[in-house]
Amino acid sequence: MPIFHTAGDLECMHQVCHRSLEAAGVTRNDICAVTFGYHLFIAGLFYQGQLETYGAKVIPVGPGETDRAVDIINRHGVTVLVANPSFALKLGSSGMNRIKILFAGGEPLTSVSGYKDRIRQALGRDLVIIDSYSMSECIPIARNCAMETGLHIMDEFVYAEIIDPETGKNLENGRMGELVLTHIKKEAQPLLRYRTGDLAELVETPCNCGRHVTMPRGISGRTGEMLKVKGVKLYPSQIKTIINEHGTGTGFRLTIRSEKGVDRLILTLEDIPGARPKLKNLRHALRKATLLNFDEIAFRGHLEEGPMVSDERDVLSSTL
Amino acid sequence: MPIFHTAGDLECMHQVCHRSLEAAGVTRNDICAVTFGYHLFIAGLFYQGQLETYGAKVIPVGPGETDRAVDIINRHGVTVLVANPSFALKLGSSGMNRIKILFAGGEPLTSVSGYKDRIRQALGRDLVIIDSYSMSECIPIARNCAMETGLHIMDEFVYAEIIDPETGKNLENGRMGELVLTHIKKEAQPLLRYRTGDLAELVETPCNCGRHVTMPRGISGRTGEMLKVKGVKLYPSQIKTIINEHGTGTGFRLTIRSEKGVDRLILTLEDIPGARPKLKNLRHALRKATLLNFDEIAFRGHLEEGPMVSDERDVLSSTL
Repeated sequence: MPIFHTAGDLECMHQVCHRSLEAAGVTRNDICAVTFGYHLFIAGLFYQGQLETYGAKVIPVGPGETDRAVDIINRHGVTVLVANPSFALKLGSSGMNRIKILFAGGEPLTSVSGYKDRIRQALGRDLVIIDSYSMSECIPIARNCAMETGLHIMDEFVYAEIIDPETGKNLENGRMGELVLTHIKKEAQPLLRYRTGDLAELVETPCNCGRHVTMPRGISGRTGEMLKVKGVKLYPSQIKTIINEHGTGTGFRLTIRSEKGVDRLILTLEDIPGARPKLKNLRHALRKATLLNFDEIAFRGHLEEGPMVSDERDVLSSTL
Repeated sequence: MPIFHTAGDLECMHQVCHRSLEAAGVTRNDICAVTFGYHLFIAGLFYQGQLETYGAKVIPVGPGETDRAVDIINRHGVTVLVANPSFALKLGSSGMNRIKILFAGGEPLTSVSGYKDRIRQALGRDLVIIDSYSMSECIPIARNCAMETGLHIMDEFVYAEIIDPETGKNLENGRMGELVLTHIKKEAQPLLRYRTGDLAELVETPCNCGRHVTMPRGISGRTGEMLKVKGVKLYPSQIKTIINEHGTGTGFRLTIRSEKGVDRLILTLEDIPGARPKLKNLRHALRKATLLNFDEIAFRGHLEEGPMVSDERDVLSSTL
């Protein structure tokens, strides 16, 4: 589906970002390098436009060619980098000088626990990392500020709600559910209670930057993949996040069986040499995140090709 | 060398192009596809910006992925394509629907005789082809209008002169020489009688589009490579253009010898099967363009590696 923006929309989208650039600590004197591409994925254009209209200095570095990018960044005293997190790490390990602020996009960051720490280890302890969340239908949606208290919803541009993906009912703050968006000012293709299919939780706490509505943990998964196990909603992508945090591989197979009318939850993980997490810790983390007790956690040297989730329950019993 | 633009410069650069977009026949209803990239080569950003502020609809297609580009162009009724000429031909042969206007850049076009005809054969007889000339130090410089009377200098933005590259003296209109540019409005890094190193000729003829100063044949070569043969200035890159127009390959070797104090000009061309031009026509074209009589024109199956120009004259005699 093509996404339309009027000239007014583009101006509004840039203006909305100015508050967030300020809250990130960007000044008009900063020299910014944008490493996204020019493409249907409009992140590059969008950062170029918002930084230009904000009044900062922008170098359109573009994607790829790590060594040249490092050379440009170091030679011109770049202080603000716009990149996806993995490319930022690559630039760091290729000799990039210290930067002040990283605007990250294009990959999960806040939702992967420990990822920000890893970036700071590589790029500098005092680095401000700004994670963002957008989708092609709605850009921008949320960014954190320099205080990193969670991704603030850009609430003068978009109104966010969390609903139960099954019932469609609104959920109170702090409950995980499907993010629903309504545009406030958009002229072309405004979204009206648009179901994003993304799982998140909202909290409403005043932040010193002036924002109130925040997604503290970013996006935790997709609603389409929800299962009901032992009466509890389970999103398999949550598991991927957790096992990744525990330093193992991300390959897994979730098997759900019904034994005497009771659900059994079996998790099989790829056994990567030297990267086997402590079972006790992993079980605890899984329980905390999903509210479910995993009956069996097993390691296997190599997982055969197949679905990530294998629901072997009787269809009738599983829908009871 | 980095090139700086202030916010005012960017706005001015976009505004300057509006007159040329209008003269090309672009309307606010046109749907434009830009196939350049986002990079230090700012053509993509520049077309996106000028078309957006002009008020036309722009799709940031980006480079590569021919089939997807064709699909987007056809599905959304694109009428204006921004591409380099060879990519436009590739899109044409991959099933692109008729377009109305092609903005070409990034490759020589007007200076290669017959290239526009080839593009029209592939993309449609009534296609308006807009060639442009810019350099990183100065963008934009010149574009033709829908009448295709030559590349009009954007004279409210840049003042163009032609000088003799040896003496630095100004040449009258219609004489080939080095293009020298002076910015009229630029705030950051304005050029003041900047020697481009590019060879061109200017004519001053009022065009129906309102412009006066025109480069009828685009850029014919570079000044750095000039030789003096038989008392006449010769730019070897001119030869490349001419032999290309005569349907042979572009590989050549130019040898200049001194025999009894007289220069002899020997041109060796790669002999491409089925593409050997008529010697008489070629000799005539070379003479017309360079004012020089070529003493010998030979074909050889394969040209060994080596310099394009081999000046075997005695240094002393050649400087006499």
